[in-house]
Amino acid sequence: MTRIWVINPNTTRAMTSTVEVCARAVAAVGTEVVGITSEFGPPSIECHYDEAMSVPGLLAAIRRGEAEGVDGYVIACFGDPGLDAAREVAVGPVIGIAEAAMHAASHLGRGFSVVTTLSRTIGRAEDLAERYGMARFCRGYHACEIPVLDLETDPMATKIVTDACREAVEHDGSDAVVLGCAGMADMCRHISEEIGVPVVDGVTAATLMVQSLVTMGLRTGKRGEFAAPPAKEYVPRV
Amino acid sequence: MTRIWVINPNTTRAMTSTVEVCARAVAAVGTEVVGITSEFGPPSIECHYDEAMSVPGLLAAIRRGEAEGVDGYVIACFGDPGLDAAREVAVGPVIGIAEAAMHAASHLGRGFSVVTTLSRTIGRAEDLAERYGMARFCRGYHACEIPVLDLETDPMATKIVTDACREAVEHDGSDAVVLGCAGMADMCRHISEEIGVPVVDGVTAATLMVQSLVTMGLRTGKRGEFAAPPAKEYVPRV
Amino acid sequence: MTRIWVINPNTTRAMTSTVEVCARAVAAVGTEVVGITSEFGPPSIECHYDEAMSVPGLLAAIRRGEAEGVDGYVIACFGDPGLDAAREVAVGPVIGIAEAAMHAASHLGRGFSVVTTLSRTIGRAEDLAERYGMARFCRGYHACEIPVLDLETDPMATKIVTDACREAVEHDGSDAVVLGCAGMADMCRHISEEIGVPVVDGVTAATLMVQSLVTMGLRTGKRGEFAAPPAKEYVPRV
Amino acid sequence: MTRIWVINPNTTRAMTSTVEVCARAVAAVGTEVVGITSEFGPPSIECHYDEAMSVPGLLAAIRRGEAEGVDGYVIACFGDPGLDAAREVAVGPVIGIAEAAMHAASHLGRGFSVVTTLSRTIGRAEDLAERYGMARFCRGYHACEIPVLDLETDPMATKIVTDACREAVEHDGSDAVVLGCAGMADMCRHISEEIGVPVVDGVTAATLMVQSLVTMGLRTGKRGEFAAPPAKEYVPRV
Amino acid sequence: MTRIWVINPNTTRAMTSTVEVCARAVAAVGTEVVGITSEFGPPSIECHYDEAMSVPGLLAAIRRGEAEGVDGYVIACFGDPGLDAAREVAVGPVIGIAEAAMHAASHLGRGFSVVTTLSRTIGRAEDLAERYGMARFCRGYHACEIPVLDLETDPMATKIVTDACREAVEHDGSDAVVLGCAGMADMCRHISEEIGVPVVDGVTAATLMVQSLVTMGLRTGKRGEFAAPPAKEYVPRV
Amino acid sequence: MTRIWVINPNTTRAMTSTVEVCARAVAAVGTEVVGITSEFGPPSIECHYDEAMSVPGLLAAIRRGEAEGVDGYVIACFGDPGLDAAREVAVGPVIGIAEAAMHAASHLGRGFSVVTTLSRTIGRAEDLAERYGMARFCRGYHACEIPVLDLETDPMATKIVTDACREAVEHDGSDAVVLGCAGMADMCRHISEEIGVPVVDGVTAATLMVQSLVTMGLRTGKRGEFAAPPAKEYVPRV
Repeated sequence: MTRIWVINPNTTRAMTSTVEVCARAVAAVGTEVVGITSEFGPPSIECHYDEAMSVPGLLAAIRRGEAEGVDGYVIACFGDPGLDAAREVAVGPVIGIAEAAMHAASHLGRGFSVVTTLSRTIGRAEDLAERYGMARFCRGYHACEIPVLDLETDPMATKIVTDACREAVEHDGSDAVVLGCAGMADMCRHISEEIGVPVVDGVTAATLMVQSLVTMGLRTGKRGEFAAPPAKEYVPRV
Repeated sequence: MTRIWVINPNTTRAMTSTVEVCARAVAAVGTEVVGITSEFGPPSIECHYDEAMSVPGLLAAIRRGEAEGVDGYVIACFGDPGLDAAREVAVGPVIGIAEAAMHAASHLGRGFSVVTTLSRTIGRAEDLAERYGMARFCRGYHACEIPVLDLETDPMATKIVTDACREAVEHDGSDAVVLGCAGMADMCRHISEEIGVPVVDGVTAATLMVQSLVTMGLRTGKRGEFAAPPAKEYVPRV
Repeated sequence: MTRIWVINPNTTRAMTSTVEVCARAVAAVGTEVVGITSEFGPPSIECHYDEAMSVPGLLAAIRRGEAEGVDGYVIACFGDPGLDAAREVAVGPVIGIAEAAMHAASHLGRGFSVVTTLSRTIGRAEDLAERYGMARFCRGYHACEIPVLDLETDPMATKIVTDACREAVEHDGSDAVVLGCAGMADMCRHISEEIGVPVVDGVTAATLMVQSLVTMGLRTGKRGEFAAPPAKEYVPRV
Repeated sequence: MTRIWVINPNTTRAMTSTVEVCARAVAAVGTEVVGITSEFGPPSIECHYDEAMSVPGLLAAIRRGEAEGVDGYVIACFGDPGLDAAREVAVGPVIGIAEAAMHAASHLGRGFSVVTTLSRTIGRAEDLAERYGMARFCRGYHACEIPVLDLETDPMATKIVTDACREAVEHDGSDAVVLGCAGMADMCRHISEEIGVPVVDGVTAATLMVQSLVTMGLRTGKRGEFAAPPAKEYVPRV
Repeated sequence: MTRIWVINPNTTRAMTSTVEVCARAVAAVGTEVVGITSEFGPPSIECHYDEAMSVPGLLAAIRRGEAEGVDGYVIACFGDPGLDAAREVAVGPVIGIAEAAMHAASHLGRGFSVVTTLSRTIGRAEDLAERYGMARFCRGYHACEIPVLDLETDPMATKIVTDACREAVEHDGSDAVVLGCAGMADMCRHISEEIGVPVVDGVTAATLMVQSLVTMGLRTGKRGEFAAPPAKEYVPRV
Repeated sequence: MTRIWVINPNTTRAMTSTVEVCARAVAAVGTEVVGITSEFGPPSIECHYDEAMSVPGLLAAIRRGEAEGVDGYVIACFGDPGLDAAREVAVGPVIGIAEAAMHAASHLGRGFSVVTTLSRTIGRAEDLAERYGMARFCRGYHACEIPVLDLETDPMATKIVTDACREAVEHDGSDAVVLGCAGMADMCRHISEEIGVPVVDGVTAATLMVQSLVTMGLRTGKRGEFAAPPAKEYVPRV
């Protein structure tokens, strides 16, 4: 049995449910996927500040997972917050959803478009694309200007995202679309059918990537930068 | 049932058996993996000429697979020969083993070392690393100077490759190793245990990547560069 | 006497005649240029599949040339198919027309535009520009959507290509144009006169580049990656 | 009066004193520099985990500074933790010491060497160099393998760092040295005199950079990515 | 007392006055700034030829400065002419205004726009951005098509430049503007107030950068490429 | 008749003779090559200062050439001084010898080594390699530490350069060598025979490149950055 935790680094449980359902739908026989909600931090992640403030809650979840012997982790926010630190803490693999989505989309053609929520998050996506070596595949970043939590409540959200995906593909001449928010995971198949182009959701892509790495017995290399963090006495927040 | 063909683009059946065994060992329940040997071309691929001459045989295999409704393909040679053309011909995903191994290794730390057979193949590996955006993760290329077919027959081969992997990691300060030949697939676990570092075999990595893409319903984008090739009347070789 | 073969890697003899005429028009006294048509393969090269399938015929031509002591070769297709393999086989220099055209255009200003036939070939041109270090000079890729063989038969072809060149220069703010197909070789001077901008044809540029290298006694380095391919027993196509 | 806070994002007050003294020594007449110690978090920052866990304390300090009308901030840790988030929170400029040191050193010649504490921190320095566009100037990264807090207590620390700087310059052929830890700030002038090469301390460089930006009336652009973070109700840590 | 010469490498004294005023306005107590006009060469620098011809006059000024013990120099032309040579001749730091402006702007957000005089100078700005590692921050180059000397005499100049800055920011989605000519130095504050975005003038940025480097005791590294030029007997111009 | 001037931008006539002989040896029937010595400036070019001071003399020579209707120019110094300005002044093509040598060597394999005179000139060679897109082909820069003028007088010079070339190829694993000084032009064939590797001299490569461009009717694009410089009244040197 392979046990994977898909960690939602914001504190909104409805979003965790969405990503858990999507992740479970693709897991192989013998893989157990559990959605985990961060126990403290911001209710949604829409800027650098939110992201930075979400990381301690995410890392606390991973420490709990390590205590329980979890095999691998997905960080279910398109900013891939805390990825380096998480790789130090966890023994098994840790994959961010931006990382997984961009990698998967790079196998589908020469280039993809990213469609995300708010335009102020595009800079972070650009940074991640560069970090992962995926900038050469990314032909454009497009924002819907929908706040993250409205993805679940705005009845027009799916249509707005679908339209943005269609326009992105036309504008960029790209072969595929990457959805730039965990909250879009459940729209993925619908959008792909509507626009006739492969659409990649990072939650499912990351879940399958972790599952694949665990199957191969591959873990983060621990001989240098990603060794376990040295134990330290922290000054606590009062 | 997901059907994946792992195509060995050289004509040496023993090597196909090796890669088929390795690929089957990681496939999920519900995935059928078949090893396919190219029906014409070179017995091993050790230079640009061999690689170029292997492509028509590989593409013929993919055309046969398409006629049989195969869901996805692995190109089981570390030069990833014919990848672009294969993506035009196939409806489902096609992944090269260099592509899959480099991508997988990039999730395991800051950098990896590639250990390959002959030094004259390193240039091709460099080209592929750049193409896939993986050059930033690749810290060094190392050759064992073992011809491809000797991997299966030379009793010292595993030791030589293991030693080369150990030295590569020390020299490059890397977090993981990528094995640079399909013929090394069955050495992977042994080497990792010997040197205590994650070692990535592209055959298993590519098989799982194809399986994951099929599970997600993702295929090569067909709206532009990778549309099916136009039908043409070829002048046949006499 | 310097002997150069300009090899058309498709099987359409009319196109060979066009490129032979253009190449001969620039050759120096003492240089003999012969146009060679590939003996098998596709009638035109318009996608990755065509290109891959053209390479064995091209390499067969180069092997014949080596038997006859030819001094150097031009690969007269803008995808530069089989260039690395050809450099292993040939003792003298081998130059692709995309390679030569991009290099020549880089000497004429800060940037050039590429005008090619079908938009699906642009990805390959991008790959080549990167490989040759010429991406920094290439300001845009533009397709006329004329199939290769129509270049010789469509009475509007020259006008369409000329218009595309004019628009490309305006759009990109470039200093020169690179023609992206061997079949455009004979339009080069006309287009340049019409639009008042330097226009580079790769067939003539490659012919002169080979001639120059032979004059300087320069050949492909043979101490490593580009040594002659090892002899192997191929499994023949039945 | 220009007020600059130099924030030590770890909780070790002795280190704050060191950086405050160094920063004050270079401030212009009319600039007031105050050293600030983070009120919670790790006692030193030596891995990605430490760095991630230091960010909330750093951001709390900046929020306090904003309430007091501080003009600009220095983040006095060579990992430049929380820089993007800090730029959203602060109205005035925020500069990291890695950022400032690398920029300053780039003006002193073709390339510099970075000398840091533990080798596991080098990856982060590489990431920052790339982010700032300074990778092209950085010729090598060298670790002394001295833990951060030992810089203040180990009587051999200055000699060890000096020797590492001398060797780095020889090995890399560089024109200058960048000290890779805020705790090395007070060694800077001594090392430069010993080895006869310009040595850059990021604490002083960042302080002067903030002072310069404030003098010019320059602040972080607030029309997009770095606008103030939206107000949100956080789930508190129990 | 820190003595800085701000050298105008063209021969137009009115422009020197402008830059001297701007530079003095930001200098700290204890810094003396003197504007120097090149004694021979072109009256304005608007192309590569002008720039090349301005360098001997610039270097002559620096040699005079060295004889007088000047502490550091600003090259007050956005092409940063003769920067490498000047760093060989001078003992103290030398900073170009394009260099300083781009560096400063990179601290203010993700990207900046450059607004310059004539479009033919944009290529040089691109070269410099790459050289300084600032290309990743530069989102666009925009020309006003105002000749350099008209900046001081055309009553519409400030309005034209302001409008160009506003449009550049909108078009590029950038966080800041870099003014691409020393002759725009005195417009800087006005434009920033008009368009509500940080605007960077290189003259002030470079002056403060030199002042900062001198304060830190940092000079060009002299152990290799930037050592003093060897003495030679020149063939004089008759 | 094609008329090419090979301009030696230093004032040492013996060196002009060397390069003229080498250039003439490769020129085609119908090409007249004349060596031109700069009329004022430094006797050799060994640092940025020398190079900057050589440019006015070089540009004066090109203005004379234009008056005489010369078809194209070679700048016979490996720093390619004044190339951009020369392209504005000349109607026909202008090629630098570093430019031509690096381009030619890039056609001979995966990578080349540069062997030059003094180590302090390597930085300039790196800049040029990047500018021309040739950095990806350049595997190493090696200095002989022979001053330029000693190349003609030191009886050991050829042996020292040959040894440096041999060691460079071994160290870098390169396929070819680029000679990094015009004064090495006459050693080229000898070194190649001694070390058994292609060796490229930029003087001959540039001469043939200019000849080829003129044959194709290709000139610098004049619609933007490289238009003729605007006429200006210079302040003369007294």
